[in-house]
Amino acid sequence: MPQFSASDAKWMALAIQLARKGRFSTTPNPMVGCVIVSADGVLLGKGYHQKAGQGHAEVNALIDAGFTPHRGAASSAQQSSEPPPTDGSTVYVTLEPCSHTGRTPPCANALIEAKVGRVVIASIDTNPLVKNRGVAMLREAGIIVETGLMDTLATDMNVAFNYRMQHHLPWVCVKLACSLDGRTALENGKSKWITSSESRLDVQQERASACAILSGADTIIADDPQLNVREAELQETTKTRFSKRQKQPLRVIIDGKNRLNSRYNLFNDGQEVLVFNTEHNPQLKEANCQQIQLNKKGDFVDLKEVMNNLAALQINRIWTEAGPSLCGALFEQGLVNEFVLYQAPMLLGNKAKGTINIHSLTELDDAIALESLEITQLGNDLKRRFRVKS
Amino acid sequence: MPQFSASDAKWMALAIQLARKGRFSTTPNPMVGCVIVSADGVLLGKGYHQKAGQGHAEVNALIDAGFTPHRGAASSAQQSSEPPPTDGSTVYVTLEPCSHTGRTPPCANALIEAKVGRVVIASIDTNPLVKNRGVAMLREAGIIVETGLMDTLATDMNVAFNYRMQHHLPWVCVKLACSLDGRTALENGKSKWITSSESRLDVQQERASACAILSGADTIIADDPQLNVREAELQETTKTRFSKRQKQPLRVIIDGKNRLNSRYNLFNDGQEVLVFNTEHNPQLKEANCQQIQLNKKGDFVDLKEVMNNLAALQINRIWTEAGPSLCGALFEQGLVNEFVLYQAPMLLGNKAKGTINIHSLTELDDAIALESLEITQLGNDLKRRFRVKS
Ligand SMILES: NC(=O)c1ccc[n+]([C@@H]2O[C@H](COP(=O)([O-])OP(=O)(O)OC[C@H]3O[C@@H](n4cnc5c(N)ncnc54)[C@H](OP(=O)(O)O)[C@@H]3O)[C@@H](O)[C@H]2O)c1
Ligand SMILES: NC(=O)c1ccc[n+]([C@@H]2O[C@H](COP(=O)([O-])OP(=O)(O)OC[C@H]3O[C@@H](n4cnc5c(N)ncnc54)[C@H](OP(=O)(O)O)[C@@H]3O)[C@@H](O)[C@H]2O)c1
Repeated sequence: MPQFSASDAKWMALAIQLARKGRFSTTPNPMVGCVIVSADGVLLGKGYHQKAGQGHAEVNALIDAGFTPHRGAASSAQQSSEPPPTDGSTVYVTLEPCSHTGRTPPCANALIEAKVGRVVIASIDTNPLVKNRGVAMLREAGIIVETGLMDTLATDMNVAFNYRMQHHLPWVCVKLACSLDGRTALENGKSKWITSSESRLDVQQERASACAILSGADTIIADDPQLNVREAELQETTKTRFSKRQKQPLRVIIDGKNRLNSRYNLFNDGQEVLVFNTEHNPQLKEANCQQIQLNKKGDFVDLKEVMNNLAALQINRIWTEAGPSLCGALFEQGLVNEFVLYQAPMLLGNKAKGTINIHSLTELDDAIALESLEITQLGNDLKRRFRVKS
Repeated sequence: MPQFSASDAKWMALAIQLARKGRFSTTPNPMVGCVIVSADGVLLGKGYHQKAGQGHAEVNALIDAGFTPHRGAASSAQQSSEPPPTDGSTVYVTLEPCSHTGRTPPCANALIEAKVGRVVIASIDTNPLVKNRGVAMLREAGIIVETGLMDTLATDMNVAFNYRMQHHLPWVCVKLACSLDGRTALENGKSKWITSSESRLDVQQERASACAILSGADTIIADDPQLNVREAELQETTKTRFSKRQKQPLRVIIDGKNRLNSRYNLFNDGQEVLVFNTEHNPQLKEANCQQIQLNKKGDFVDLKEVMNNLAALQINRIWTEAGPSLCGALFEQGLVNEFVLYQAPMLLGNKAKGTINIHSLTELDDAIALESLEITQLGNDLKRRFRVKS
């Protein structure tokens, strides 16, 4: 294991902070941040990845440092025999530089061109096709490469992207909003507003960081929600960052019995909707949506197939706002990775509606076990984030 | 309003800290702490109230300072013309000194005898019969009296005692232990152990700080619990403090249909049990318990009468460990003041058993509204404490 200095840690922390700015816009790409520091410890440039198809973090940082890569012989400044401003510098990057030509040329090449002396990498690419190749390219060019500094932070930040790369499945987060006794609505259906306005604004932040928002036909029929991001309700910094993405999260609706028609709100706001069913639904002809037909599993659309399809569509993070049956089915089928609970400080009693329908358990060991990640006070509510234990 | 100095605040904080040592043993009395400081700022003595019938905080502090009050002419040291060691000192006391002769002579007299110069009081006695009398006695004797320093802390500490004084009702805390979706047991009844061992130990601490522990016949029949304090399971400091009390909290059981008999565990451990029913239960003849017959309210023992009886028995704080019907009835009848929730990080689904039975609500405004007081991590569980909004 390489030894890292306090200043290495400081610069990598900055790179991670930069990476996080891409949280609302990099989809389907991972967040990446990069900092370039001269041999005598002066910050030369910084950058992060904003949007798929646009500059990678390393290239943005090189440009910020005064070196424009991939210009080839045409670039007059770089044609001169003068060394580039990044000559001998150290590059801190949160993810292994890419080694393949995608929508942009490989970043490893750019760093080699820029004659950097050392590259410190937080985490190695999880994509088995490119993993360690960036490191190898850099080393072959004589650059010192060190890996693993703040690996956990950098990996956690991209947990959804990494999960899709490894499992060909999206990272599914289920949201529930309920009382302390686990109730989402009164027996008569009333549920507005159990949670505080702060919680409802927070839901907008969560939606904005998701690649897709998942729900089911019954929720659409009951509430006719838009399930979109309302930019006016976002925090100021999020608003700026989300706007770089230039589109709404994909709305994904399960409608196995073709109960929906084109009149529902979400089909009429000009943004994307994807409906999963088992037979083509002609009632959606007028609707602004795509349909995908899947196999049945029992009486329902096969949810595992839904997820495989969404992974193929490069959906990393799914934010689920659904009722007890869809949420329950996702949990039961082991398709949930993360759980966000907004708890309002009230009790509604056992006649009120519960949160998730799952088959009756016979042993406590079969309970859905969760690991607590985060607790936040939102107005009078508590927001809790959990990872589902597998 | 008097102006208090930073050193006043320091000494009163110490007095409050001392008072809290009595948490597990003063019942039915309030917790009180006292600190005596010389005119030049030297700590002369400190004390707190440990147990009803034993020294009050002020007297304990005076003795600690070298002055034994109430000796009258017999005390040779105090007979001499030398001024007492507490002459001209300042006394910090968390509750107004008493003015009446109870099991001990009035503390106000003792402070006058000790020739203290100034008395700083956090909160005034809430008992309408004695309120402000101690202050008046001290002032008549020429002592400077200032009140209200850290009043809120001192009052909150004795919230249960104060509530009984004002309302002739005990302060009722309901405990629930459940999953995040508000479930206490599986459909088949299995419930051991939903919460962590840390939570179960914490319940011992809570029981130890209660005057009484309340439950119902169905819980006794289902679980045959002891509902006592197991000293071995207490934290070390609590063990020492609880042992000063020299008795267990009173177990109070609602058994409106005389379904209990003397064979249940709690009737056979030599400690007190009080059963409320509507007719004398001959099956409890052999049981080590008292019975009190009350009126019916509908099909049940009138719970308001239960509470009036317990207040008359000087029960300040009730810790309720009961099931959904008794807890629900207490909440519905507005008899609950505090709510403690142990939340285990798991989901059990809507078929599992819920926490409280209340009549179906028709409006969200009728929900039981709570104010969050405290959040504690206990192993993997979260303990939350709320006050019921009235
Ligand atoms: N408190 C909250 O946070 C919250 C959020 C959203 C919704 N809600 C409430 O929840 C209620 C609706 O709940 P819901 O769960 O019935 O509606 P839902 O969320 O719309 O879920 C039902 C959908 O899921 C599908 N589904 C159910 N079980 C499945 C399985 N095993 N495999 C595959 N698909 C399955 C159904 O398929 P088919 O199409 O084949 O029937 C249906 O399309 C509404 O009252 C709504 O207001 C509450
Ligand atoms: N998770 C937990 O923290 C926890 C704690 C304790 C117990 N439990 C479980 O709870 C279950 C029992 O629940 P439960 O609520 O039926 O039993 P309970 O706690 O024993 O409460 C029932 C008792 O309350 C009385 N009661 C009910 N409604 C009343 C009303 N409106 N007015 C006056 N009295 C009333 C009943 O009176 P009558 O005598 O007239 O019927 C009965 O004595 C057991 O399975 C037990 O294991 C769970």
